[in-house]
Amino acid sequence: MRELTLDDLDDMVLGATLLGTGGGGDPYIARLMVRQAMEDFGTVKIVTPSELDPDGLVLTVAVIGAPTVISEKVPAGPEFTGVVNALASYLGKKPVAIMPIEVGGMNTLIPLAVAAELGLPVIDADSMRRAFPQIEMTVFTLAGIPASPMSVADEKGNVMVFETTDNQMAEKLARSAVMQLGLANGISCYSMTVRQVAEAGIQGSMSYCVELGKRLMAVQRGEAGSFDEFLKFAEAKIYFSGKIIDLDRRTTDGFAKGTVVIEHMTDPNRTMHVEIQNELLIATEDGKPIITTPDLICILDYENAQPITTETLAYGQRVNVIGLPCAPEWHQPGMLELVGPKAFGYDMPYVRMGEAK
Amino acid sequence: MRELTLDDLDDMVLGATLLGTGGGGDPYIARLMVRQAMEDFGTVKIVTPSELDPDGLVLTVAVIGAPTVISEKVPAGPEFTGVVNALASYLGKKPVAIMPIEVGGMNTLIPLAVAAELGLPVIDADSMRRAFPQIEMTVFTLAGIPASPMSVADEKGNVMVFETTDNQMAEKLARSAVMQLGLANGISCYSMTVRQVAEAGIQGSMSYCVELGKRLMAVQRGEAGSFDEFLKFAEAKIYFSGKIIDLDRRTTDGFAKGTVVIEHMTDPNRTMHVEIQNELLIATEDGKPIITTPDLICILDYENAQPITTETLAYGQRVNVIGLPCAPEWHQPGMLELVGPKAFGYDMPYVRMGEAK
Repeated sequence: MRELTLDDLDDMVLGATLLGTGGGGDPYIARLMVRQAMEDFGTVKIVTPSELDPDGLVLTVAVIGAPTVISEKVPAGPEFTGVVNALASYLGKKPVAIMPIEVGGMNTLIPLAVAAELGLPVIDADSMRRAFPQIEMTVFTLAGIPASPMSVADEKGNVMVFETTDNQMAEKLARSAVMQLGLANGISCYSMTVRQVAEAGIQGSMSYCVELGKRLMAVQRGEAGSFDEFLKFAEAKIYFSGKIIDLDRRTTDGFAKGTVVIEHMTDPNRTMHVEIQNELLIATEDGKPIITTPDLICILDYENAQPITTETLAYGQRVNVIGLPCAPEWHQPGMLELVGPKAFGYDMPYVRMGEAK
Repeated sequence: MRELTLDDLDDMVLGATLLGTGGGGDPYIARLMVRQAMEDFGTVKIVTPSELDPDGLVLTVAVIGAPTVISEKVPAGPEFTGVVNALASYLGKKPVAIMPIEVGGMNTLIPLAVAAELGLPVIDADSMRRAFPQIEMTVFTLAGIPASPMSVADEKGNVMVFETTDNQMAEKLARSAVMQLGLANGISCYSMTVRQVAEAGIQGSMSYCVELGKRLMAVQRGEAGSFDEFLKFAEAKIYFSGKIIDLDRRTTDGFAKGTVVIEHMTDPNRTMHVEIQNELLIATEDGKPIITTPDLICILDYENAQPITTETLAYGQRVNVIGLPCAPEWHQPGMLELVGPKAFGYDMPYVRMGEAK
């Protein structure tokens, strides 16, 4: 068990921005919610599954929508406790802990605010350890754990509870509801027991996020050797350094899609293309895959090492493109069909980090 | 209380086709469901509110989608008992009766099949006594009764329960769910007490539908004086007799929309335009409104007096266009904003039947 301090919170925000791989909503907005909740209701405990009753109910909470919209329409709050309470009431059972579904982006932090308000601990696990744009893209889907029953709510009092035949249909129905409800809503899905979290979840993701953020913070402060230490901790690598020379972004079907083109800093004949679907998903050079989902692509400001989200990408920015290997729990049968390049419509193979030729 | 016989059922199917005003789904498909349910579970009682506990829970059931799709994808059945059971379970209460929300089209009959299976009576009331394309278009909305909580289900096991801030949002969310679930689904909304049905519902609509069908049946058999008797009972009037010379139909945003143009039988200088949004909504001559929603527009085959649904309208058909006044319960404050011509985007006044100049 660890008590989350305000210092931890700052590290977590930076780590979450990095793990957002350009998407997942801006954690700095969610940070305000968490601070407010901590002031109103007290600090939050981060616990491991072994500290809880194995049969206890774990409920998740997240924001669902398009990052571009979420950043403009700051979540109000009641929709998040709202979805958790709606699902608990539907299940006729109280949760023993709150879990992030997505440690990456804003959804890393929202569970903390809800947990503070409900007086519950947050479980140190998740289902992605990065951001992904669709509900079914979790290690829980690989483990056969259903996303439904799930609840969706807005800040005005519209609440929906869904029972769906599979996690793809859960995504489809939630997405169409969200398109009606303004593209920035609360969702609670993948309710499960503590035992299921222990068996099927990605363990320690909240702690990992804090540690990652702490090390990136040292880089930003310019501490000696800190970049190497950061890359080593994350098993990360700088793949490309250059300047953004083209940028195409659009919001379609409830997703922020686009492509960013980066020209190499020293060799103008080299360019990297990074494809966006809410998150940065594929990085290619000359059509050859360099970093591929589910491994993480992060674009850092060349000067200050700040992760740049897809909304703040801009023409002329000088950047480092780094790759981080995905959580080891992802490497199991079914991964590529669910979250590999082809799952997003890119006709190219997955190149596991370290294996690129 | 009346026990619904198979003869009643045939009359009801014909009456429901007429009250469908061209839409509402084909009652002949639903008739198969009702016959099957009656064979499996026994006949159904039609009761008035006064025969039930005033505090008893009444649940509605209907098909929601596009008539063009519903006719091709015959409803399977489990989605209808499914939505009723889901809503009862959500409310934590068992219903004492089932109510049609829409006596007009297929939705007149589906409650009978569900009532037979659940061993419940059907209440002799509804909220439209015609078909309308949207959930909020009911006398219950005028009475301030919320459509939510409501449930939507498909035949595969996808079920959703909604709490919405108003009936317009209920329509929006249900419609977007239905567009994902294949455009032919079960819905249960406007749960209420027997007392509320007695106070705010349109009374006697099921009996009215049977009696209307019985009289139209006599017309179809060619009985002497039967057309006059039918028109008198329905307070109806033949407004136009002619031949369909143009027809434009399309399915957009989950609705079947279109326009039918009819040339007068004896005066080729006269044409009538009838506008469709699932149902026949507006009949005009030279841009002048002749019959307007919420009054009913019915197109009958000129030879055999069979009501023609919007799906079976065809070039060259010879038809009578008749108007029926809407149920008197509609005439209350808010009617025109909710179901008048402007509510459907037609910039013309409502012309109450009998008042056209």
